[in-house]
Amino acid sequence: MKAPTAGNMMLYSIIEVTNQSIKDTLAKTCDNQPFIAKAPLVLLFLADYQRWYDYFINSEVPELCKRMNIEMRKPQEGDLFLACSDVNIAAQNAVIAAESLGVGSCYIGDIMENYEIHRELFDLPQYVFPMVLLCFGYPTKQQKKKAQIRRTDKKFIVFKDKYRRLNKEEFNNLHKDLEEKVFKVKNFIPGAQNIGQHFFLRKFNADFSKELNRSVREILQNWLHK
Amino acid sequence: MKAPTAGNMMLYSIIEVTNQSIKDTLAKTCDNQPFIAKAPLVLLFLADYQRWYDYFINSEVPELCKRMNIEMRKPQEGDLFLACSDVNIAAQNAVIAAESLGVGSCYIGDIMENYEIHRELFDLPQYVFPMVLLCFGYPTKQQKKKAQIRRTDKKFIVFKDKYRRLNKEEFNNLHKDLEEKVFKVKNFIPGAQNIGQHFFLRKFNADFSKELNRSVREILQNWLHK
Repeated sequence: MKAPTAGNMMLYSIIEVTNQSIKDTLAKTCDNQPFIAKAPLVLLFLADYQRWYDYFINSEVPELCKRMNIEMRKPQEGDLFLACSDVNIAAQNAVIAAESLGVGSCYIGDIMENYEIHRELFDLPQYVFPMVLLCFGYPTKQQKKKAQIRRTDKKFIVFKDKYRRLNKEEFNNLHKDLEEKVFKVKNFIPGAQNIGQHFFLRKFNADFSKELNRSVREILQNWLHK
Repeated sequence: MKAPTAGNMMLYSIIEVTNQSIKDTLAKTCDNQPFIAKAPLVLLFLADYQRWYDYFINSEVPELCKRMNIEMRKPQEGDLFLACSDVNIAAQNAVIAAESLGVGSCYIGDIMENYEIHRELFDLPQYVFPMVLLCFGYPTKQQKKKAQIRRTDKKFIVFKDKYRRLNKEEFNNLHKDLEEKVFKVKNFIPGAQNIGQHFFLRKFNADFSKELNRSVREILQNWLHK
């Protein structure tokens, strides 16, 4: 409730998912992740311009526009991206607050898939975008002990004054640690001969990615310039 | 560097803006906010699929695709939104970390405006979206004392199991506190007769909003399904 927000507008809403049958559905529609159904606390964070748009109507903005001879436009692409910042900032504040209480969390980006199902499930109107699902719970002993997977080295992520595309040598070193230390014991996904190909098949070319793109394309129709 | 990220992919890059002439430009292009030029630390957070896409090319994914008879698609809308979550989550972690050190911060959503200028200023390739600008600095005594502007009441933001559009009575009460306590002393923007109309004229219908939508529409062209 205190997260930074564009113009103090809080361009988001939050749904606490308490109904078990909704959790069960999400466990399927969010790329089949059964642990969602078992999470003790599930929060859905929505990028929301509907509340403000409805509020404008209720505040007789259409009459104001007529009086001032200006156009009463609808929420558009840029408004959506501003709301996307607001909603993720708020979600990450919830994650940090939870962590300070010893509560672990997991982001489910797959909530952006299957828009038509989620729209019906949560009664989402046109200008509400289901962007972030967060599952909270107390971590088990094993989870607490588990080392975080190695991150990309800072030198490939942080630049000074200009963006810089990496060169061939840098790309060859980009995920070398990950390739050697993490994936040595496991096999790559069938077909992949290096970690780049592994990530391509496992993530970028996976069914969930295709569904994500299809679903978001559908959501965007609600916001494209009119 | 340790923020939650989709599939451990860190779909973002960060540019530390140290060059004074770049800060000066941003102070103009981000809706004329002179304090940007004076901020001791300025970080630009970019939603970034270019690094991964280039990495796929470098990892001979095109050859893999030929071999497996699959299409090598380009980054699309859903990939962008996943990256938008990643980048805002990382940015908010930076904000919280800074706060723990007594360093204040301010989000500049206006970095999404004037895409063509920012693209050239930072050498941004096709699949890099300038989403978040953060200014950091030590707050003054006055800033520390300043009370945070009242937020929307939780009952209008948090719902249970379903989204709910507010009713007329709720809309009438939605920003009543703000209207009475914050705006009583100041005048509304010329033309506005209530706080909804004030926000409409001051935010939604402001020039920066129109530029934001135009600019983001231009950025989206890079990602629309191909």
